[in-house]
Amino acid sequence: MTTTLSPLGLHRVLDPPGVLPQAAWRLDASAAIAADEVRIRVDRLNLDAASYRQLREAYAGDPDKIRAAVGEIIATRGKMQNPVTGSGGMLTGTVEEVGPDSPLGLKPGQRIATLVSLTLTPLVITDSLSRWDGQSEQVPCEGHAILFARSIAAVLPADLPVPLSLAVMDVCGAPALTQRVVQPGSVALVIGAAGKSGSLSAAASRRAGAATVIGVVPTETEADLLRENAGLVDQIVIADARDPVGLAARVQAAGGPADVTVVCVDAAGCEGGAILSTAQGGTVIFFSMATSFSAAALGAEGLAADVTMLVGNGYVPGHAEFALDLLRTTPPVRSLFERRLAAEGGLR
Amino acid sequence: MTTTLSPLGLHRVLDPPGVLPQAAWRLDASAAIAADEVRIRVDRLNLDAASYRQLREAYAGDPDKIRAAVGEIIATRGKMQNPVTGSGGMLTGTVEEVGPDSPLGLKPGQRIATLVSLTLTPLVITDSLSRWDGQSEQVPCEGHAILFARSIAAVLPADLPVPLSLAVMDVCGAPALTQRVVQPGSVALVIGAAGKSGSLSAAASRRAGAATVIGVVPTETEADLLRENAGLVDQIVIADARDPVGLAARVQAAGGPADVTVVCVDAAGCEGGAILSTAQGGTVIFFSMATSFSAAALGAEGLAADVTMLVGNGYVPGHAEFALDLLRTTPPVRSLFERRLAAEGGLR
Repeated sequence: MTTTLSPLGLHRVLDPPGVLPQAAWRLDASAAIAADEVRIRVDRLNLDAASYRQLREAYAGDPDKIRAAVGEIIATRGKMQNPVTGSGGMLTGTVEEVGPDSPLGLKPGQRIATLVSLTLTPLVITDSLSRWDGQSEQVPCEGHAILFARSIAAVLPADLPVPLSLAVMDVCGAPALTQRVVQPGSVALVIGAAGKSGSLSAAASRRAGAATVIGVVPTETEADLLRENAGLVDQIVIADARDPVGLAARVQAAGGPADVTVVCVDAAGCEGGAILSTAQGGTVIFFSMATSFSAAALGAEGLAADVTMLVGNGYVPGHAEFALDLLRTTPPVRSLFERRLAAEGGLR
Repeated sequence: MTTTLSPLGLHRVLDPPGVLPQAAWRLDASAAIAADEVRIRVDRLNLDAASYRQLREAYAGDPDKIRAAVGEIIATRGKMQNPVTGSGGMLTGTVEEVGPDSPLGLKPGQRIATLVSLTLTPLVITDSLSRWDGQSEQVPCEGHAILFARSIAAVLPADLPVPLSLAVMDVCGAPALTQRVVQPGSVALVIGAAGKSGSLSAAASRRAGAATVIGVVPTETEADLLRENAGLVDQIVIADARDPVGLAARVQAAGGPADVTVVCVDAAGCEGGAILSTAQGGTVIFFSMATSFSAAALGAEGLAADVTMLVGNGYVPGHAEFALDLLRTTPPVRSLFERRLAAEGGLR
């Protein structure tokens, strides 16, 4: 399609020509940067969980074979995109060179994380992944990566542990969009309020001026988490979000229906409950990747529900900074994140 | 959950108790209405295409067996919901009795079409479907159906042929939501502009004051349809909506990117093209049931696209009247609808 400079990196697409970098089989990952690009000195890849699982199973857990396979993918494709799963991951590194026309606002020496997928990021590995034990999706390495004008990268803050910052950045689209939508004095409902994106969305609702924040959790254990981290929500509702009638009745009793409902649980079948718990004229934001487009569209129609339904876009300008600020200034959010990270194995 | 009167019809759910009527196995379809209900004298069912296809294949096209199967479903379940496909359809009929507290604004004697699915509408058939030949999804019949307070029904206008009104009502959510979102002076892009929901959405964009309406069609034949019906769009773009880079380049050349993009084609894989053809800060409305939630969410993130993405809700108050008015006052829309209906076999 084009070999002229493109903010989306079309000029780096080698094969097939004319597609977006994510759809390409092979990218040009050469180190020389265009005027609007940035080169990163990579220190770690964080492979997508599905991708790592596929590799581990395909090679029966043999570290040498897994390492060789990942090295081969990157060398062949100019990016880390697992050809079986189609997924990538993200990376951390240090800004090495910034083109004069880059709009990303980065400076050499800054430690950053990429918030766009490895599936569209030109990448070269120079140490044969020799420091990686092949035992986890965390891949220490040396090499370089290229950011385009429309890439997204966030500076890793000096005051927070890297795993904590990465966990926040992973879900930072949710609180940013929530804060845009919630109006002062309104009722906000967060389904999955004790989770990562949920707790940040609850804090964002509060920041936006919600009069009441209702948090839905599936179990007493999760409710205890919210009780121990008092102040994050005003009302705790224990309900199965897949039961529309039961959920809506409990939300009603807790001060609903909601003006804005934020769906942050990765269970399938929560569309009807979210719609039914939302007031006519209200808004539902779906952040769960388990959301069914047709279930949402047909569900609202079947309930004669005049609700605005938003696809949770993971990108809102300034989202990482906003989410990190929420974490810093909302002790219950930080506490919930630290507990979840510890439960997941901490630094891994 | 409840046996008290419910605007959603929960009081008509027999089995299992506590679920929404759509999720129920069996509804109470008795003729006596509650204070907020309406009873319809049914004259025709319009079975969902997927449901009719399944029945025809299951019974090898035998009309007697198909008729018996549909009669048995309705008698057993108290509604016409194909247990295999889960789908229903809609009906036409005449308002017979209106409860004193019904908010639907209907009057006895009015000819109406239901705009909520048969999957949640209590239904009794009294003529054994004897007038149905079993050869199409159009089922002439006698019986009654019940509308709840939050059902949706539209009066069939006297000045338009019934098949034309039904075709408009089938897609009336799209123009209503489009008109809400498009701002005066903006650029509107309709992908699939020569189709039913597309032509109405183009007319709605114009009505909302769009400065430029760009229509995307896949072929020269479809482009000719738009040219013959001049005035519906300002710019015609022939492009494959599944090719993000190609589509965005052609839309750009035609006056884009768009402030509002409306996706009205039922092809899979149009999410990236719609997002890339939309300006930063703009809005994409997905009306296609082929939309993938995750492709939209991850696509926008991968493109660092700050776009608002709406799930096309089929219900907006007043949608049927608005769409019928657009058809009456926009000759190219009426002409396109009449050509499409003729191509589909007209009255069938």
